[in-house]
Amino acid sequence: MRSLKTTAIKLSYISSKRSYCHQFINPNFDSKATKSGGGNNTNDLLTNLGYIYQLPTAGLLHYLPLGLRTVKKIGDIIRKNLNNSIDANEFPVNEVSLSSISPTSLWVKTGRYPNDEVFTLNKNGDKNAKFLLVPTCEEEITAMMKPYLKSYKNLPQIVYQISRKYRYEKRPRGGILRGREFLMKDAYSFHVNERDALKCFDMMKSKYDLIFQAFKIPYVSAWADSGEIGGDRSMEYHYLHEIGEDKLMICDECGIASNIEKCQSTPVGKGQFKDPVEVTWCLNKEGDTLIGIYYPGTHELDPRRVVEAYGGEDLDLDTINMPNEKVLLKYQRENEDIMLASMVRLMDCRLHPRSNLPDFPLSKYSKFQFVTIDEVDLCFSKVGDVCEHCGTGHLRMEKSIEVGHIFYLGDKYSKPLDLKYVSKDNAQEVVKMGCYGIGLSRVLGSIAELTKDDIGLRWPSTIAPYTVSFVTPPNIHDDTSLLREIEHLKNNNSTNTSDDWLFDLRKDISLGKKINTSHAAGIPICCIIGRKSWPYIELEIRGKRYSNTWEKAYEMEGNGSKFDWVSKGEKASTNSKNRTFEKHLVHKDDLNSVLAILLKDL
Amino acid sequence: MRSLKTTAIKLSYISSKRSYCHQFINPNFDSKATKSGGGNNTNDLLTNLGYIYQLPTAGLLHYLPLGLRTVKKIGDIIRKNLNNSIDANEFPVNEVSLSSISPTSLWVKTGRYPNDEVFTLNKNGDKNAKFLLVPTCEEEITAMMKPYLKSYKNLPQIVYQISRKYRYEKRPRGGILRGREFLMKDAYSFHVNERDALKCFDMMKSKYDLIFQAFKIPYVSAWADSGEIGGDRSMEYHYLHEIGEDKLMICDECGIASNIEKCQSTPVGKGQFKDPVEVTWCLNKEGDTLIGIYYPGTHELDPRRVVEAYGGEDLDLDTINMPNEKVLLKYQRENEDIMLASMVRLMDCRLHPRSNLPDFPLSKYSKFQFVTIDEVDLCFSKVGDVCEHCGTGHLRMEKSIEVGHIFYLGDKYSKPLDLKYVSKDNAQEVVKMGCYGIGLSRVLGSIAELTKDDIGLRWPSTIAPYTVSFVTPPNIHDDTSLLREIEHLKNNNSTNTSDDWLFDLRKDISLGKKINTSHAAGIPICCIIGRKSWPYIELEIRGKRYSNTWEKAYEMEGNGSKFDWVSKGEKASTNSKNRTFEKHLVHKDDLNSVLAILLKDL
Repeated sequence: MRSLKTTAIKLSYISSKRSYCHQFINPNFDSKATKSGGGNNTNDLLTNLGYIYQLPTAGLLHYLPLGLRTVKKIGDIIRKNLNNSIDANEFPVNEVSLSSISPTSLWVKTGRYPNDEVFTLNKNGDKNAKFLLVPTCEEEITAMMKPYLKSYKNLPQIVYQISRKYRYEKRPRGGILRGREFLMKDAYSFHVNERDALKCFDMMKSKYDLIFQAFKIPYVSAWADSGEIGGDRSMEYHYLHEIGEDKLMICDECGIASNIEKCQSTPVGKGQFKDPVEVTWCLNKEGDTLIGIYYPGTHELDPRRVVEAYGGEDLDLDTINMPNEKVLLKYQRENEDIMLASMVRLMDCRLHPRSNLPDFPLSKYSKFQFVTIDEVDLCFSKVGDVCEHCGTGHLRMEKSIEVGHIFYLGDKYSKPLDLKYVSKDNAQEVVKMGCYGIGLSRVLGSIAELTKDDIGLRWPSTIAPYTVSFVTPPNIHDDTSLLREIEHLKNNNSTNTSDDWLFDLRKDISLGKKINTSHAAGIPICCIIGRKSWPYIELEIRGKRYSNTWEKAYEMEGNGSKFDWVSKGEKASTNSKNRTFEKHLVHKDDLNSVLAILLKDL
Repeated sequence: MRSLKTTAIKLSYISSKRSYCHQFINPNFDSKATKSGGGNNTNDLLTNLGYIYQLPTAGLLHYLPLGLRTVKKIGDIIRKNLNNSIDANEFPVNEVSLSSISPTSLWVKTGRYPNDEVFTLNKNGDKNAKFLLVPTCEEEITAMMKPYLKSYKNLPQIVYQISRKYRYEKRPRGGILRGREFLMKDAYSFHVNERDALKCFDMMKSKYDLIFQAFKIPYVSAWADSGEIGGDRSMEYHYLHEIGEDKLMICDECGIASNIEKCQSTPVGKGQFKDPVEVTWCLNKEGDTLIGIYYPGTHELDPRRVVEAYGGEDLDLDTINMPNEKVLLKYQRENEDIMLASMVRLMDCRLHPRSNLPDFPLSKYSKFQFVTIDEVDLCFSKVGDVCEHCGTGHLRMEKSIEVGHIFYLGDKYSKPLDLKYVSKDNAQEVVKMGCYGIGLSRVLGSIAELTKDDIGLRWPSTIAPYTVSFVTPPNIHDDTSLLREIEHLKNNNSTNTSDDWLFDLRKDISLGKKINTSHAAGIPICCIIGRKSWPYIELEIRGKRYSNTWEKAYEMEGNGSKFDWVSKGEKASTNSKNRTFEKHLVHKDDLNSVLAILLKDL
């Protein structure tokens, strides 16, 4: 009696009128109505297909069931790879979860507050912000780790969290790629010295490769500038795509990529450029040296390279961006006797020795006042430049979306926040740090963008909200014995993946519409169950093949030998207008094994 | 070769110098140094034992690895019970995740903004708050569900999320029980009518019972006032404890509990109370009726009961809290001819017909102006009152900590936010709602409070961060073969719970200290592995027994028959000063089975 009752309950569980996440899918979404060639806006697709809900206030969104499942899968991949050790000498890794509120006083110490780009928290009407919503957690983690890193014995340590971060943007672009609230994995590492920290940087680089490989979408890791966060070694992870806001320079020979801001290259046409030559005037910080920067008018000046060429921090960066006249006026005003002041000429290496330089703008000067630094690279790399890494390949430029970034921080945060440990020699030393981010919501948005087509979304199986959907004709509910078989299928799933199975047994929706919905939502495999073909199940493959190991498995085992599995392979029949899908017909008893084989490639 | 290499890597994984969460446990924490009788402050315990880090700014905290694991376990229990259906006609449940930022404009519509108790978000220096940090999500969810609940066919629906919520408190008490940021599960249900919504209320009541039973700690569900959230049926979930800020009235006969604000009872000594009689004067909203509330001076007036007795919303609640003189002045000022105004006397049912009533304070009045309502209950229930549910038991009062609350909301949010559906009859109807909360961080804090003792924390196995810890003498690292055996033990754990195993193989910590740390951190079972007893493992039971099924298993199977398992039962040897622990000696091959048996009870 008891077991019968249990069965009855389970059966009703699967066969009830529930629609689960289908509730959130726009019933009027029709792939046929969309423009061909991927004309759907990705945010609209994610909205229509039940992944996100965009608040009328731009820059904020809610995760609907399918979207939440997808970011959870992305998070699980990250977590698994961070927690698993890849070699014996690895550093200990702990997951924590910090408050999203942080006192501004902490940020004042590291010079990151006041800050236009953070949300501050006020009690209604209270003007003095004591708290902010964290955009990233270097300050908080540095403060938090203090009691736990008192001795060299406590080092190294890595902690990470997956949590919401906040960024105040005046004009937030809507959607998931750049919102005011976003999901981020941020890890922080703590070390006795730079050598150890850089070893950790390399270890995290390997882990990031495993993580991004698990997402299945080709990515580019590029050397980058550290920017606001600070430190002096940093690498970014990008997806190449025309909607991206970043620019990468990639060598067509060795493949090494750099963010354009960081890219070093051997200029093409060194010493050959004649005109027009541009000059930008600037000053040193004391205001007593006038610096003339000469470079080809066809190139863009890179202030970072200018500083490097000038050799030091002494250059007043503000004056680079001032109009030349203002700089010259300032120079004349601050130096009463111009003849005693010094002048430096920086000559970009692209210029020809006999280039026509612009006239010197001041009337009083002596040529003995001049120092000339030539043969230096003062401009951003350009397409066609020779790669500095391999010395043979040429650079091309690609637009990209940044989804991850790892940094060596050094003591940028540990020094102002006084994070010190007692060394073996009983001395107080400043802890060296690294930090490592991945934007989960950006990964979701980017992969949606990169994989969508004119049917809808198309997820890699590793991050798909469900790997398999089961659809039935509406009249399935008249067929109790088949319902019971479906239940049985679900419960006897030995591979422990039935959580990843989405059932669509709705009564009021046609089979065709159910299949279309599954494909549009990007579920990699759609299983069609009906009385006609039972005990065979028809599989339609929506996911893209990232590898082709299934064919081997099919030849070895599927071809009548081990599994009862008929494949129509790529010679698939037409499903909807102009669309073909790879199809397989699989006996119910072989379903689990065949799904496992197919999913490996998707 | 390949498998050998894999083994080598795994072995180094477990035997490396990692300390994981032990890093965050205060090495100087010593249970012996603490006061006996549970004198440890719970927040200090959680801090010292690596569960939380309290920010210097009161009311904010970070979760350390052990704390994060514990709230995740609590969340998993909630999630599992919400997702699993308990009967065939159940409502569909979806998990979502809403933004923690919400536009204030939405809250103005429901009358919950401006609000002193929420954090508002300003761009630095900007005075007009456009956003707030959500303390709860009725507004947002109601707005979000609009496009998905257009027809009666889309109803009912339940959505829930587990996320951070925020509350601005001027003087936040530190610690985990009442912080400015807290973790909450909030569910919301949507229905065609009240009957359906109340059915859902009852279903959620059943689910809450399953959830709280899974936490293993005795709880009380109590009828409650709906308060700010609104609606008219609500039940709270409490843990009884003296530090609690709530007061429950519980019947010693039928056990039904109510929050003191909601508790109805039959007063003891009805019609017998003589003096002193108190009177509180108040007015109706129009100001033309003077109401005198007469009640025993030994009781506390309950404004809600007064309103009910007076019969309606017409009573001006503000005047109840004014001093009598001010009310009388106001009455005289607003009614030029007192003889035309009306007066009402409310007489509490406890008063004796011949009680000495205070003199009437106005000089001009006619007794024909008076209306008297007597035999009404105007005061909060008191200890000893007769329970209104069973009519025989008497009430006792208990202090308690509220950890959950479920509400029937009706149209409190759907009406102002215009959440309507098209009914079967093609009419526009307002959706009826319910909401259902559990405070995850409060559950963590309350259970820590309720279960701690003079050794430290003591978790039920269902929410313990790890169910089992493995400790070794420091010299284990000289014994490669034993290390390999430990690795083998871990990898051959068939019960899929090895994620719940915490290894403490540290070199620089004594075995005794490791055992003490495991017990203080509240891990239910500590397994001691050493060369001396190997292949037997010594188990010390730290967890409390909530049931005793293990004894049966031990008698049936353990006693030399199925498992090689020597139990020292309750006659345990002394571990540290004055403490005894139940101990078992188990053969390594039986470890998994025996742990499974023991953990069921803990």
